[in-house]
Amino acid sequence: MTFANLSELEAQIEAIKDQKKLVKGDKEKEAALALQLKELNVQKAQFGKSSEQQKNKITVKVPKGTRDFNDKEMAVREHMFDTIKSVFKKHGAVTIDTPVFELKEILSGKYGEDSKLIYDLKDQGGEICSLRYDLTVPFARFLAMNRDYQNIKRYHIAKVYRRDNPSINKGRMREFNQCDFDIAGTYEPMVPDAEVIKVAVEILEKLDIGSFFVKLNNRKILDGMFQVCGVPQEKIRAISSAVDKLDKMSWEDVKKEMTEEKGLAPEVADRIGKYVSLKGGADLCEKLIADSTLYSNASAKAGIDEMKTLFVYLDIFGITDKISFDLSLARGLDYYTGVIYEAVFNSTSEETSGVGSIAAGGRYDGLVGMFSGTEVPCVGVSIGIERVYAILMAKQSQSVKTTSTEVYVSAVDGQLAERMKICKELWDNNINAEFTYKASPKIKNQLATCEKQQIPFAIIIGSSEVQQGVVKVKELATGTEESVSRAEMVSYLKAKLGK
Amino acid sequence: MTFANLSELEAQIEAIKDQKKLVKGDKEKEAALALQLKELNVQKAQFGKSSEQQKNKITVKVPKGTRDFNDKEMAVREHMFDTIKSVFKKHGAVTIDTPVFELKEILSGKYGEDSKLIYDLKDQGGEICSLRYDLTVPFARFLAMNRDYQNIKRYHIAKVYRRDNPSINKGRMREFNQCDFDIAGTYEPMVPDAEVIKVAVEILEKLDIGSFFVKLNNRKILDGMFQVCGVPQEKIRAISSAVDKLDKMSWEDVKKEMTEEKGLAPEVADRIGKYVSLKGGADLCEKLIADSTLYSNASAKAGIDEMKTLFVYLDIFGITDKISFDLSLARGLDYYTGVIYEAVFNSTSEETSGVGSIAAGGRYDGLVGMFSGTEVPCVGVSIGIERVYAILMAKQSQSVKTTSTEVYVSAVDGQLAERMKICKELWDNNINAEFTYKASPKIKNQLATCEKQQIPFAIIIGSSEVQQGVVKVKELATGTEESVSRAEMVSYLKAKLGK
Repeated sequence: MTFANLSELEAQIEAIKDQKKLVKGDKEKEAALALQLKELNVQKAQFGKSSEQQKNKITVKVPKGTRDFNDKEMAVREHMFDTIKSVFKKHGAVTIDTPVFELKEILSGKYGEDSKLIYDLKDQGGEICSLRYDLTVPFARFLAMNRDYQNIKRYHIAKVYRRDNPSINKGRMREFNQCDFDIAGTYEPMVPDAEVIKVAVEILEKLDIGSFFVKLNNRKILDGMFQVCGVPQEKIRAISSAVDKLDKMSWEDVKKEMTEEKGLAPEVADRIGKYVSLKGGADLCEKLIADSTLYSNASAKAGIDEMKTLFVYLDIFGITDKISFDLSLARGLDYYTGVIYEAVFNSTSEETSGVGSIAAGGRYDGLVGMFSGTEVPCVGVSIGIERVYAILMAKQSQSVKTTSTEVYVSAVDGQLAERMKICKELWDNNINAEFTYKASPKIKNQLATCEKQQIPFAIIIGSSEVQQGVVKVKELATGTEESVSRAEMVSYLKAKLGK
Repeated sequence: MTFANLSELEAQIEAIKDQKKLVKGDKEKEAALALQLKELNVQKAQFGKSSEQQKNKITVKVPKGTRDFNDKEMAVREHMFDTIKSVFKKHGAVTIDTPVFELKEILSGKYGEDSKLIYDLKDQGGEICSLRYDLTVPFARFLAMNRDYQNIKRYHIAKVYRRDNPSINKGRMREFNQCDFDIAGTYEPMVPDAEVIKVAVEILEKLDIGSFFVKLNNRKILDGMFQVCGVPQEKIRAISSAVDKLDKMSWEDVKKEMTEEKGLAPEVADRIGKYVSLKGGADLCEKLIADSTLYSNASAKAGIDEMKTLFVYLDIFGITDKISFDLSLARGLDYYTGVIYEAVFNSTSEETSGVGSIAAGGRYDGLVGMFSGTEVPCVGVSIGIERVYAILMAKQSQSVKTTSTEVYVSAVDGQLAERMKICKELWDNNINAEFTYKASPKIKNQLATCEKQQIPFAIIIGSSEVQQGVVKVKELATGTEESVSRAEMVSYLKAKLGK
């Protein structure tokens, strides 16, 4: 509430005191009014201080780790979202929506060590809730609650929240968008997995960010590999997360972590080292099948057979040139049970170096069962939209067109009512049009706005045009001007705009 | 984390105990691991109980006052959002984005009594934040922070949060979408105000919800009216909120509230009663000008003059037939300073009766100044999207098409690889296509899916088609089937789809 002067504020304080008397006995209302009184008295104490002083009182900023996006940034983001959505839709996906917060217990025990990054809502009476940490767990919760959605191909573009240490340079924010595509249902093995990878590749190609490739592996192979190398069962998770660091650390350092920090025998580490250096395509499947030690392990065999099948399908989809079967890929999240993948950007510029993973996902067959007791196998991918956005912004060379305006209606001599009439006619005929809200704007300024906003056409009128019942139409790209009768204005512009 | 069996879970507990020893001294890491251990031990205690028992432990539901939207509901919502966006864009608006939570002090003191409905985040160390209550205050905060955005026409479609008592019947939720359109900047009086009302009318017409009208009033007239009627300054807010109830209560009851509850003299109430019964169009301006008592009040005069100007512009925009100048409209929010309006749905069915206000807004010239000390005049409207959605869902008679799929690729005898090849070719040529992930699906089921999802074309193959290098294309609407060579398949479908 703003008050023009102190007496108005004081009058309001009196009014609330009156109200408080009236609601005597109703404790909730009394408390609410008492709170208001308190706030007003604080305002009263501030009153008369300069606006500069008042400004110093409230810090006008966004919370740490969050940010606004202005019109130019949103134009780039919306184009990016539309591109991604068009590929999701090309593959027949539908979308669903879930609340931004979930019951805290739904999120508990799903993210391992990272659970500490979950944002909780304050307990204001009622249920205990947390902001969603990703879109996968809410999707699994949705599937568990909706038994008629056991087969669904869905996408979801929405914000998620992590109380992480923000780093603008690393693009790590506390609020950021995720773009997820998942296929749920029991199907022919590896067919949905292949389509999910195809979708990721199509999106990254269509976004035109530059060169990238997709690392591919399988949790079943990893588990089998650790077993045959002699990793004790209880150390598998720890060793797996050490392996996952191979994209940032040398083998020597990873080995050191395994042996010195995690107490693995050096000869076991060396056996792992031999495996995790293996990279290739479909040929690597044959190599692993020929490794009788590994292939005789049930888990490894299952994984290798899956990869062999997957490569057949990836070949049909024409994307094997983008794939690197890489035994060092382990992925952090606990819930993966089969194929895992990560798309990596080949940066050529300093600005976007270290961008790293730009899409990632895998198969998670156990998550829905944690909620419903009934397993619904799922496979999905999440596009690392904030990283893609950083790459696109770094590439952005010219100024972005932020509006969809097609015609800017201007006048040399005011003509406010006439400009409004013309706009009305254009709007009613589905032509995107604007005029300035000033009574006597300078024509120079109007045309400058038109040019700055990259609006393709300007209508220019003056008293003589109004008298003659015509408008001048200027095409900004060519600079040509044509006089068109008012009666033909709409059809002329529609033809020019290809509408 | 899911565990296939108890020993796997126990192994994990041992592994974390090991990790905890390794990080000894690092209190943060130790605490995180301790938390994990606690959770795992709870899981261990649960292990072996039936899934039914486990299910009873976690309540799998969404938080009170929130909801999921499934694919069919989202198809209706997305169509609604797209329609609204197209009108915003037609009028040259850009979009911005702001975080879902703000510093608590940004929201404090903006919503009067309703401040108690604000959701706070838990204090987990760091800043104290709250979920946004509307999109207007974050917009004002953005304008205060960005001095080069003093003139902007922006829309924002996003979710807001109110810890209100939810009521499904009344469509009152704790999480819901708002669609806001606002014009900021110092301009010729009433011109942006007229365009905002025009935008609201265009949207409601385009959404095709049925009959509606727009109540219009001006805070300046209300303030002047209360003054000339003899309402004591300190009672103006309370009396104004009593007047605002006239759409739901009779004048007798409102008068009773004014006199008995709020202590207003009966003769003052009667004078108000005379004014608030006035309704009309531009003619009402003349009537109020002729009322020398009212028109000699400075605030009332300013308001009446504004309305007279506004009606000239509304007439140019061709929407006066939708407008009811109504002196009983007061609007709840404190920050309005001039023109106020509310679009009301004329319900004809029981299902949507009581839907009431479907868009509302007004001029708020003081809000930005509360943050920056510099005033930025603003006027805006918020489309009551959840109510519009309720109306659209009630009207929905046939089943909704949820996917954008254009071609369903099926086979009479399996042909998984061949179906995948065809889909790949279609996707690569920007045709939206799907196939089922089963190896040997029944043709009957495939065509049933195609029909159910309202996919316009089906491709049907079998071994003979594969051998001959042709495909059968079935047009679902007509039932006609044509044999097309594989080489011509894409161009044939593109022509049929008008691509």
